Amino acid sequence: MATFNPHFKKIPKGYFTAEVFKRTKAFLDSHPGTELHKLGVGNTTEPLAPSVIAGLRRGVEKLASAETYSGYGDEQGDARLRKAISEWYGKRGIDIDATEVFVSDGAKSDCANIASIFRARSVIAIADPVYPVYRDSNILTGNRIVYMPVIEKNGFAATPPKEKVDIIFLCSPNNPTGAIATRRELKEFVAYAKKYKAVIVFDAAYSEYISDAKLPKSIYEIEGAESCAIEIQSFSKSAGFTGVRLGWSIVPMALRCENSARGELNQHWNRRQTTMFNGASNIAQEGGLSILSQIGQKETHAQIAYYMKNAEIIRKGLEAVGMTVFGGIHAPYLWVKCPKGLSSWEFFDTLLEKAHVITIPGSGFGKNGEGYMRLSACDHRENIEKAVRSIRDTITL
Amino acid sequence: MATFNPHFKKIPKGYFTAEVFKRTKAFLDSHPGTELHKLGVGNTTEPLAPSVIAGLRRGVEKLASAETYSGYGDEQGDARLRKAISEWYGKRGIDIDATEVFVSDGAKSDCANIASIFRARSVIAIADPVYPVYRDSNILTGNRIVYMPVIEKNGFAATPPKEKVDIIFLCSPNNPTGAIATRRELKEFVAYAKKYKAVIVFDAAYSEYISDAKLPKSIYEIEGAESCAIEIQSFSKSAGFTGVRLGWSIVPMALRCENSARGELNQHWNRRQTTMFNGASNIAQEGGLSILSQIGQKETHAQIAYYMKNAEIIRKGLEAVGMTVFGGIHAPYLWVKCPKGLSSWEFFDTLLEKAHVITIPGSGFGKNGEGYMRLSACDHRENIEKAVRSIRDTITL
Repeated sequence: MATFNPHFKKIPKGYFTAEVFKRTKAFLDSHPGTELHKLGVGNTTEPLAPSVIAGLRRGVEKLASAETYSGYGDEQGDARLRKAISEWYGKRGIDIDATEVFVSDGAKSDCANIASIFRARSVIAIADPVYPVYRDSNILTGNRIVYMPVIEKNGFAATPPKEKVDIIFLCSPNNPTGAIATRRELKEFVAYAKKYKAVIVFDAAYSEYISDAKLPKSIYEIEGAESCAIEIQSFSKSAGFTGVRLGWSIVPMALRCENSARGELNQHWNRRQTTMFNGASNIAQEGGLSILSQIGQKETHAQIAYYMKNAEIIRKGLEAVGMTVFGGIHAPYLWVKCPKGLSSWEFFDTLLEKAHVITIPGSGFGKNGEGYMRLSACDHRENIEKAVRSIRDTITL
Repeated sequence: MATFNPHFKKIPKGYFTAEVFKRTKAFLDSHPGTELHKLGVGNTTEPLAPSVIAGLRRGVEKLASAETYSGYGDEQGDARLRKAISEWYGKRGIDIDATEVFVSDGAKSDCANIASIFRARSVIAIADPVYPVYRDSNILTGNRIVYMPVIEKNGFAATPPKEKVDIIFLCSPNNPTGAIATRRELKEFVAYAKKYKAVIVFDAAYSEYISDAKLPKSIYEIEGAESCAIEIQSFSKSAGFTGVRLGWSIVPMALRCENSARGELNQHWNRRQTTMFNGASNIAQEGGLSILSQIGQKETHAQIAYYMKNAEIIRKGLEAVGMTVFGGIHAPYLWVKCPKGLSSWEFFDTLLEKAHVITIPGSGFGKNGEGYMRLSACDHRENIEKAVRSIRDTITL
């Protein structure tokens, strides 16, 4: 007698962005023909870099000939790509062996699946507000969530939870606040993890947007992190692979938990991935190799600079009408305070109805997101400029 | 205090094929320069069909221009592909709505993840022998396994378990035995599922190898299956997408379990996929659209015919030396009885040492696989012919 997983009743039926679509549609239905400007969705818009397209083409052409065709590859990823990722860390002075690299179809899957190597009913600490996948995926698998409030008076910095937890999810640069964890902050988390034998899951999907060398791009820049932290990375936002799907996780040999021997957690994740996943697309992996090449890094960093110029335009435009804007310096996300004490949804409606701009209400990312909006720098320049101009022309505080 | 998932201790450390590699390497180390023939690994070898390559190229080129670039798509799959899959079923007289189709990165992920929509500690029935992913993934998530013995005297047909179970995994055409479930057999399972409110997970990854119209390719050919069965499909073996990664699952709106309303299980799987997965690669999905086109179906079916000719060559060759061969008629797998009461590993060693042929021991697929070998028809014709010739020249029974 099959019965469904009762945890589905503990999470919202759908992603909160469904409400964004609903309100937008209702507005368009009553104001047909209105030109709307998107300024919230974190989706990449620029074409892939030429060197990356060349890599993907190579991936396809290999499949067209018997000499170069490949079927199932290693579930952990193409050996060349695992090596390239290991070398990418090496250039930053971080020692990661290729056997510690697990290539995947993206950071979302890894973030959602990684807790499965730990016991069920673990206690998970996540920031509030934060990317909802950490919360929902852990609730679905029966884990308990503890929140780390992330608020303005603390500069949107997370601090280790008061109670003992098993696993801590950190996201830096942060989605949605755009805040960056400093070395001092990460040291505190590493110290906490070592003290309480907790494991940190560090989601570094936006690390390439960090331009200040003093800010850590990887948890492994913190001494001792290799024994208490897993890192998750993505090609989505660094190279426009949101639709191509490619990312990776790092589970160091040195990583330990309460009852594990050296290398055992790496082995469990390896077993999970080889049992429940069949590897990322070989075409996407050829593209990934190109991204990590010298020319690929140059071209994709130029794209990031393009998006960050967008962020600057948004920030300056909104500040010019008197809004308070956080983030958007080392992250593609800007975290905008709703004026006059408006709630996220109230300000969403104002921006939609007056400026015809679609944004993402901060309250969708957690209780402490209430009163803020998440804006995204990912769009074509002319769309960003139109949206900002429309806000400047129609919104007065 | 993090502790690892204790279920990892209940499954073998690695896939049993590691032992195949180990013994092969040992043989090569002591017999350097020997030419070995592979005749067991179920990996596709033929280049993708021209129409499919054209689709993949189109997928890549779209990403090269701002007008056609796409980032995140629907996690459930491109609307065009969901519609094409719905129509593919329609042509077979099966009514599947596009909202019941969930495109994925392949059948392995779906087979491993689908049980997560049901409660933990469910009782799962699987055949013995069978594809080890059903067993290992369900043990890892805390479910209990009940085996349905699949043996020669019953024509390798599975029959519903004696005890009440919650979920039944069926694989037809079967990996590893190559046996096909008849309509009568599937009707028994549907009747069982209805009686005990169980849910069937029907893995139809090899359905395109069935050439007899009397044999069911889909569980939905059985009356009433839409209310008790999920189907999982793959482009891997039907179109050579083992490395490209693309498949789908069907969770009908009519599917019910003990405590669910109409559409609720579809909604839970939708929530699982949108929360823990970010969609299949948009490049792979363009290829999938080409596979389902008229020319794509023609070209990929010709590839299947090529592999099935290989199967015939293997069967005839092995029967000529007196071996007993099952499967390989409507499936790319052949199930060979070890002669003279040899164990799977003993006959593996014989074939390796005498014929220089690498096979897959049946015992790796379960207790009842002992005494059999799995051979695969997926290789270039000349390699198949060499391997069969080598067996004919060196093995006498």
